[in-house]
Amino acid sequence: MPRLFALAVIFASLALSSARSDDGYRLWLRYDRIENETYRTQAAPALGRIVLATPSGAESPTVAAARDELTTALGNLLGATPVITLEKLPAASSAVARSSDAFSVSSPSSFTPHSSPLTISASSDLGILYGTFALLRHLQTGQPLENLSLTSYPKIQHRLLNHWDDLNGHVERGYAGSSLWEWFYLPEIRNPRYHDYARACASLGLNGTVLTNVNANAQILTAPYLAKVAALAGEFRPYGIRVYLTARFSAPIEIGGLKTADPLDPAVAAWWKTKVAEIYRAIPDFGGFLVKANSEGQPGPQDYKRTHADGANLLADAVAPHGGIIMWRAFVYSPDNNDDRVKQAVTEFAPLDGKFRDNVIVQIKNGPLDFMPREPFSPLFGAMPKTRLAAELQITQEYLGQSTQLAFLAPMWREFLDADTFANGPGTTIASLIDGSTKRQQPSVIAGVANTGTDRNWTGHLLAQANWYAFGRLTWDHSLTSEQIADEWTKMTFGHDASVVSTITKLLLGSRETVVNYSMPLGLTHIMAEGHHYGPGPWVDKLGRADWTSVYYHRAAATGLGFNRTATGSNALAQYSPAIAQRYGSLTDCPENLLLWFHHVAWDHRLRSGRTLWDELCLRYQQGVDEVRAMRRDWDSLKGRIDDERFTHIQQRLTRQELDAIEWRDACLLYFQTFSKRPFPAGIEPPAHPLSHYISQKRRHMPGDPSGK
Amino acid sequence: MPRLFALAVIFASLALSSARSDDGYRLWLRYDRIENETYRTQAAPALGRIVLATPSGAESPTVAAARDELTTALGNLLGATPVITLEKLPAASSAVARSSDAFSVSSPSSFTPHSSPLTISASSDLGILYGTFALLRHLQTGQPLENLSLTSYPKIQHRLLNHWDDLNGHVERGYAGSSLWEWFYLPEIRNPRYHDYARACASLGLNGTVLTNVNANAQILTAPYLAKVAALAGEFRPYGIRVYLTARFSAPIEIGGLKTADPLDPAVAAWWKTKVAEIYRAIPDFGGFLVKANSEGQPGPQDYKRTHADGANLLADAVAPHGGIIMWRAFVYSPDNNDDRVKQAVTEFAPLDGKFRDNVIVQIKNGPLDFMPREPFSPLFGAMPKTRLAAELQITQEYLGQSTQLAFLAPMWREFLDADTFANGPGTTIASLIDGSTKRQQPSVIAGVANTGTDRNWTGHLLAQANWYAFGRLTWDHSLTSEQIADEWTKMTFGHDASVVSTITKLLLGSRETVVNYSMPLGLTHIMAEGHHYGPGPWVDKLGRADWTSVYYHRAAATGLGFNRTATGSNALAQYSPAIAQRYGSLTDCPENLLLWFHHVAWDHRLRSGRTLWDELCLRYQQGVDEVRAMRRDWDSLKGRIDDERFTHIQQRLTRQELDAIEWRDACLLYFQTFSKRPFPAGIEPPAHPLSHYISQKRRHMPGDPSGK
Repeated sequence: MPRLFALAVIFASLALSSARSDDGYRLWLRYDRIENETYRTQAAPALGRIVLATPSGAESPTVAAARDELTTALGNLLGATPVITLEKLPAASSAVARSSDAFSVSSPSSFTPHSSPLTISASSDLGILYGTFALLRHLQTGQPLENLSLTSYPKIQHRLLNHWDDLNGHVERGYAGSSLWEWFYLPEIRNPRYHDYARACASLGLNGTVLTNVNANAQILTAPYLAKVAALAGEFRPYGIRVYLTARFSAPIEIGGLKTADPLDPAVAAWWKTKVAEIYRAIPDFGGFLVKANSEGQPGPQDYKRTHADGANLLADAVAPHGGIIMWRAFVYSPDNNDDRVKQAVTEFAPLDGKFRDNVIVQIKNGPLDFMPREPFSPLFGAMPKTRLAAELQITQEYLGQSTQLAFLAPMWREFLDADTFANGPGTTIASLIDGSTKRQQPSVIAGVANTGTDRNWTGHLLAQANWYAFGRLTWDHSLTSEQIADEWTKMTFGHDASVVSTITKLLLGSRETVVNYSMPLGLTHIMAEGHHYGPGPWVDKLGRADWTSVYYHRAAATGLGFNRTATGSNALAQYSPAIAQRYGSLTDCPENLLLWFHHVAWDHRLRSGRTLWDELCLRYQQGVDEVRAMRRDWDSLKGRIDDERFTHIQQRLTRQELDAIEWRDACLLYFQTFSKRPFPAGIEPPAHPLSHYISQKRRHMPGDPSGK
Repeated sequence: MPRLFALAVIFASLALSSARSDDGYRLWLRYDRIENETYRTQAAPALGRIVLATPSGAESPTVAAARDELTTALGNLLGATPVITLEKLPAASSAVARSSDAFSVSSPSSFTPHSSPLTISASSDLGILYGTFALLRHLQTGQPLENLSLTSYPKIQHRLLNHWDDLNGHVERGYAGSSLWEWFYLPEIRNPRYHDYARACASLGLNGTVLTNVNANAQILTAPYLAKVAALAGEFRPYGIRVYLTARFSAPIEIGGLKTADPLDPAVAAWWKTKVAEIYRAIPDFGGFLVKANSEGQPGPQDYKRTHADGANLLADAVAPHGGIIMWRAFVYSPDNNDDRVKQAVTEFAPLDGKFRDNVIVQIKNGPLDFMPREPFSPLFGAMPKTRLAAELQITQEYLGQSTQLAFLAPMWREFLDADTFANGPGTTIASLIDGSTKRQQPSVIAGVANTGTDRNWTGHLLAQANWYAFGRLTWDHSLTSEQIADEWTKMTFGHDASVVSTITKLLLGSRETVVNYSMPLGLTHIMAEGHHYGPGPWVDKLGRADWTSVYYHRAAATGLGFNRTATGSNALAQYSPAIAQRYGSLTDCPENLLLWFHHVAWDHRLRSGRTLWDELCLRYQQGVDEVRAMRRDWDSLKGRIDDERFTHIQQRLTRQELDAIEWRDACLLYFQTFSKRPFPAGIEPPAHPLSHYISQKRRHMPGDPSGK
């Protein structure tokens, strides 16, 4: 009697505290008890017996991870402990033969003690783990469990996070605290987050992580640091997460004692071979190197009058005997080149097509500029038919409000993956160029610049977890829609209450376009404040390089607004296929959301709405503000429907986002008005301050900027 | 039936997870269910009815905080919800009259429905909160609840944490992540940790916090930042934590547009008065300023040929009308003064005795150097009889292994507080000089440099939480013994299992002496590596200033080891009272644990053990290593008796500590051997490497050093 009482009290107090606070640490793997009692009652017998059919039928750390995940998850979701058995997979099980990562989950049409058990089959232990997470997602999103036949394999072979993490703990363009990797404490002291990070990545199908910043530090390649990397690799290995590092091109000089890093120097090649062998002794499944060379001050082969291909091949030859790969970034724009910055990657790399080793992948940012709220796809996709190409996306919101503003990026990535390059005729989407479906594309890679950090909820803004989730899911299956991803993530993270799900998915799906509207609508780009990339700065006109300023990009003048990239301007359009060049080159046919990217447009030019450019521009900025206000109202309607901690967390951020959106609108419109000389149309709220006020605003002590004083 | 089953399952799974992991976030306020069923059963009726007797008998945010704490704590500890009622305190309740922070907790001799309820009385709402935490501590440590008559008041009026937190999030000498204050996000976005921080501080009786680094940034005094400070103050206010800021002396120039910060310039005085009035409008209970002036490059009154008293009084006059105080630091040593660094604070400050305003407190580090593992007390205590003096202790372990090594500091602080200055005759302890028991000492202040940060467990090393706890408890009652504090903290943090309590308290109590042994025994000091203050560097001989090097302090030579501070040397001893100077000045009477601080001692000089200095030095270093090994064995014996997460957390850190201790021993002994030219005595393990190896070791990317590349 006292015991039952105590139980009831504890339960009540837990229910209370769970209703009141959730700090977001568990991500989408929350495993709170399923609230729908009917579904839960049906699910329990369906998941009472689970068979894991693996190639060996034997336990391994990865199989143990799957078993632990099932036990914990089902215990919490259903209040029931499954009986899990291991079996040897029958030879030639065709359903799982497409990829070593493939899995199959099957179940009978009804669940009785005599029916066959639910079975997860895979041709690798890692496939079992992927199948486990797929099954749990199925359960967490409330899908039927009868007659299951989930079969899946990833379309892209290497699905990586790129951490721009410095060895001192700073994360470049990181807005969620410090680096997860505690280099000083490793290898003896291993933060339990390493394990949870690997679990979270594996749950999405990610299978690799580049631990270090592309602005690289050669120290990571020294023996003491490799011992630390090996400790991390050991933590990640059961979850199938392989580690990669960034290679500083001048490492042979900085830590090798050589006088040169010339890629054609035999001593340099020998040094890299020896160094790579040392790495593989410490980390037998090391993945390879990511390299930023001759870009924004980083050393590279051009320092020795060699090409990017020479540099990449040097490293490729060193890692090839061990099965490693080299991801060589195409993010280059020279300080000595006065041509339109967005053209320079093609200019530099297209002539090297066919000159890279088979284990080199050229890694290209989605757009030709730099992770702006909206860019056209980079014309380098489609311009190197003989080269393996990888897409580099940015999960961290460097130019989209960082960890303060809500911007769900799946629609942006969807736009990119679906873009038709016409490279091999109509229908040659970006996705088809990078997805490894042709031999020429193997090894295939997709990379996302991580938005993780030491903040308790991993990503700073709790809703930014959805971007980590969306990126991971798209790396496995780039055909998923934004709606599917938003729906999955919301249900896994916030439960199934219909108004919660509909409100949050609506917020997510509209949020990126809202950021575009209040910051850089109609194809405007790169008009942010100096240095920290947060907040407006269309007036920025003096920086180290012209192509770092805002005025370089918007070209505001009495004549109009926008960068002429047609044949009468920089002719960047010529780098695209003729079909695109023709459509985008036409002032009337160009998609209006990229209009000012490709055209310098007169203030009185009429858009499809019938409004002039100036009026439309003003209304888009106002619309962005109005949309944030609607987001706030929508969010406030959820009070009491989710725990207070997460409710308040997001409510406070949306409050701030409205202030930020207003600042963007007022600052940009007042500034552009100095060129347009036209009044604001009806419906535009008058700015609270004169332009000088916005210009004098100086943001200090930004997240991600520990050097600021 | 299904409901009961579900309850039981949930309980089991919770028990499992609670046995398996505890991340330390809850500090000593864990409130896990009391395991001793007898005690729990007796406690429940004793705490079933609680009366809070306050001056007004009315609810307030502080009373609500006390009520919430009781409800949550007793719900979790006992599984019972108390009935809490508010009453008006009878006038002239003498037990609580000594201080507005005083409280009284009383209970009847037995608990029946007709006996009087347990009552917490106080002459302020904050006293009720302090009484609440005292009662909960009483319960958490398993004390009897009958016939309670707990009456307590703090001996020191202002009990402060000093955060050396920069506005960019970096914590100077912080080793537990970044600053808790998220300046960029404030005021709209308020981390829930602010609330938990205030709760934790209040639970110890702390009542103030200096938010910013003594190496100050004037930006904190600008309007946008004051709005952020006000938001923090609002979060802290219900818990009685007042905010203070550091004042950059040159702020009138940097943010005020003046040409000078001369403290005697009327425009400067007017600027500070206006600025302070602005602060008090935003934060009506603002506490005042902490100032580091003319010290290590900080600006100050001497820049204008004025004295520290001129500078302090300038600010004191500005805050006085609002009830604020100025804490003016005495940590000064001039780059132009070649005299023994440890003498300079007295040289500078003693002549200013009597010249400070009544609301100025001169804040003095415990020792005359800088928070070393062992120092004698600063002779400035006792050298300024007409001045209010505050003690500044360092909770963060800058020189004691930071957040990697275990060093429980209560014994060190106890040693300091009990030190007899003989200032007013024998028995004039430091505690009696700072504790506010005489009018001359009001306002009284004690400050501790915080060891908190964004690490999940607040302090990096979980056992370093005990230092935050110990500091807070000593600020309230400086008569507590180290043993009492260790016992309380251990029971509150790890429960009552006898072997857990005895093992952990033993580890804690011996740990600081162990660090002394393997790093700086026998009065050695300041022989750490360059820059980061972690690890050995007795060879460091070239830095910006001689008194930053190691050789300045240890004076190793063929003749012996140690710094002669007797009359034949720097005569720093003359700054102490004659009784101390005489005893410490004698080679035979000087406490051996300070021997090399005060004396240059011949290598063959016999110590009390009968061993030569050289042999004793060697054996102390070896003893330090042996003690860490014993700590590891003791800790390992707790496997299974505490949750795995905390077990592993500390086990990994002790593993690292042994490696560090071995490095200290080997590096120091090999180095000093180059002077002693003597062999190691029996029992010393031979170093694994030659001295050159230890000198070449370069630690990189240290916690707390984000600038390191």
